Amino acid sequence: MSLSQRYQQNLLDDVLPFWERHSPDPTNGGYFTCLDRRGKVYDTDKFIWLQGRQVWTYSMLYNRVEQRDNWLETARLGAEFLKKHGTDDVGHFYFSVTAEGRPLVQPYNIFSDCFAAMAFSQYAKASGDAAYGELARIAYFRILERSDNPKGQYEKTTGVRKLKGFALPMILSNLVLELEDHLDPEEVDRTLDHSVHEVMNVFLQSDTGLIREAVQSDGSTHDSFEGRLLNPGHGIEAMWFMMDIGARRNDTELIQRAADTVLRTLEHTWDVEHGGIFYFMDAHGHPPQQLEWDQKLWWVHLEALVALAKAYEHTRSEQVRTWFQRVHDYTWSHFPDPEYGEWFGYLNRRGEPLLALKGGKWKGCFHVPRALLQCAQSLKKSGL
Amino acid sequence: MSLSQRYQQNLLDDVLPFWERHSPDPTNGGYFTCLDRRGKVYDTDKFIWLQGRQVWTYSMLYNRVEQRDNWLETARLGAEFLKKHGTDDVGHFYFSVTAEGRPLVQPYNIFSDCFAAMAFSQYAKASGDAAYGELARIAYFRILERSDNPKGQYEKTTGVRKLKGFALPMILSNLVLELEDHLDPEEVDRTLDHSVHEVMNVFLQSDTGLIREAVQSDGSTHDSFEGRLLNPGHGIEAMWFMMDIGARRNDTELIQRAADTVLRTLEHTWDVEHGGIFYFMDAHGHPPQQLEWDQKLWWVHLEALVALAKAYEHTRSEQVRTWFQRVHDYTWSHFPDPEYGEWFGYLNRRGEPLLALKGGKWKGCFHVPRALLQCAQSLKKSGL
Repeated sequence: MSLSQRYQQNLLDDVLPFWERHSPDPTNGGYFTCLDRRGKVYDTDKFIWLQGRQVWTYSMLYNRVEQRDNWLETARLGAEFLKKHGTDDVGHFYFSVTAEGRPLVQPYNIFSDCFAAMAFSQYAKASGDAAYGELARIAYFRILERSDNPKGQYEKTTGVRKLKGFALPMILSNLVLELEDHLDPEEVDRTLDHSVHEVMNVFLQSDTGLIREAVQSDGSTHDSFEGRLLNPGHGIEAMWFMMDIGARRNDTELIQRAADTVLRTLEHTWDVEHGGIFYFMDAHGHPPQQLEWDQKLWWVHLEALVALAKAYEHTRSEQVRTWFQRVHDYTWSHFPDPEYGEWFGYLNRRGEPLLALKGGKWKGCFHVPRALLQCAQSLKKSGL
Repeated sequence: MSLSQRYQQNLLDDVLPFWERHSPDPTNGGYFTCLDRRGKVYDTDKFIWLQGRQVWTYSMLYNRVEQRDNWLETARLGAEFLKKHGTDDVGHFYFSVTAEGRPLVQPYNIFSDCFAAMAFSQYAKASGDAAYGELARIAYFRILERSDNPKGQYEKTTGVRKLKGFALPMILSNLVLELEDHLDPEEVDRTLDHSVHEVMNVFLQSDTGLIREAVQSDGSTHDSFEGRLLNPGHGIEAMWFMMDIGARRNDTELIQRAADTVLRTLEHTWDVEHGGIFYFMDAHGHPPQQLEWDQKLWWVHLEALVALAKAYEHTRSEQVRTWFQRVHDYTWSHFPDPEYGEWFGYLNRRGEPLLALKGGKWKGCFHVPRALLQCAQSLKKSGL
């Protein structure tokens, strides 16, 4: 079995069946995402961004892999729930709702909206229902409206220290391509240009080759907890977004810079003692605020595999190939659960499961299937 | 050297000198609390609740241990900073400010206010400056005004699920005694009655003997992440507040119930594999949301020692004595730093330092000195 086949087989025969078996809520619509090691639902709250991510995943599989009826049906279950219960009166997406769809946590940022927009766009294509495309378009422009103050009344900083976060330009660079069917080509190009500039020329530091999670509004770094924060998973994920943009635009320099940044980030954040990529680090080597800094998270490692697979596809660099193998070996020997299927999400520094869950408040049906598919497709192109 | 002397010696010869040497900011007033292993300042932001806690600590030492000039001077440095830079226009205390005192993070809850009130009250007594007593009284009533909606505009829950938190009644039971000099005796008694009732009859579960971190407004438990949360450090800390109230009121039944609750909590949350008390647990045994759940934190263990010392002082129970020895042995062999002094704050599950810091955003000059003093005094009364 080729490497590519291994990724594809795990996706189709293990991960997707796990979610289809345990996650749908036929009574209320939507999905349960808090699943224990065996898949049993241990909490019924519904986190809107995870609802959106799962709608996106199943719609995307239907659109790009195979038009399976059960994939479309699974997507429909979440898309209708999201449409019916996802937003407040203004049209902003809640952070979470009850199993029945009653709102629990207010729309205190725009990440729920980003994943809802992606979900509606893919589902519009899968279902052929243009109404969802319009919902996607509306959500997208609401996100742009809120992008200067994404937390609204819930913003706790005073404005004395003006920092801007990496998450928004990073997500927009991916979101705008997801919504391409519903946007003007000029809007798409403008947003891509801006995102690539922000990511590669503002947040990426030319001296270290590392990405800061927040910088000052003038682009300079800031010596504070927020300003010193390194989030390698974010940085690496953004680099494969950049490589996709580079491939689309035939911009080999962008691809090369993104590939280099993946390597620099891995060299800096790889745990030489126990293996794996640290979750957070401080750019000056000070103690980070995040107590979970030394944990090994599933999505960080999967995003690294996607980025390395794409970097190898485009550059055929031996150094990239070596890093791919290193991350692949660590990932496959630690995260997949050989006994009950799907992947563990949270390991301690030594690589032992910290939580036996398969899904929770932050882990749903998204990073694992997306990365497995991306890797399978990219590795195949490289003949691996 | 007796046990009591060991606690007192560590306080006077190690912990306090460390903070006096490294923490004061003579330029701006106030204290730096982000100190690395050796005491070097690695971040200059000032977290208002840690400023308040340190003012309280030095004022309290001056009032209750010895009238040392340098203790009063250290307290003054922080009290004046807090008075000058601590509040917004309304009089609510910020969460954090810059080294110079410019506001960084808004007053998004009332914990900064609680510690400022305690600080001003102790400092009024130490300095003899009645103006600080008035500031303490004002802060106290502002806290009560906000107690129904402590987060104000920053509250992210919708109100669909009405849960109330343990932190407020727990803190009030201690705060009202700290402010006794500035309040009507009737206000003090009413608040004590209410807090004791909430803590012992509402949050303490009669079936398990454990305290929930949040319950529904009618007092029943709720099967959700928030409703299932156990925070053993909080529960145990509240129990020594209850024992102090019991001692004051000659309520031996309250003392006995509090002592029993400490033992139940320790039995339930002690890590039998690696030793130490877990930071968070789920009451139903599900995966907790907190990724740091298995870490061993300094304050949890110190609060347990205070609670056990007081429980032994009042009950002379052999079971309590055994648990005191167990927690004492773990704590003293893991947390104090033999090389550079003071105490490590954060250990991983195995008891290895996770962060080498002596102070940060949440660890300041408070739990270690308060617990060392409380233990020294209580152990002495028990002849230990």
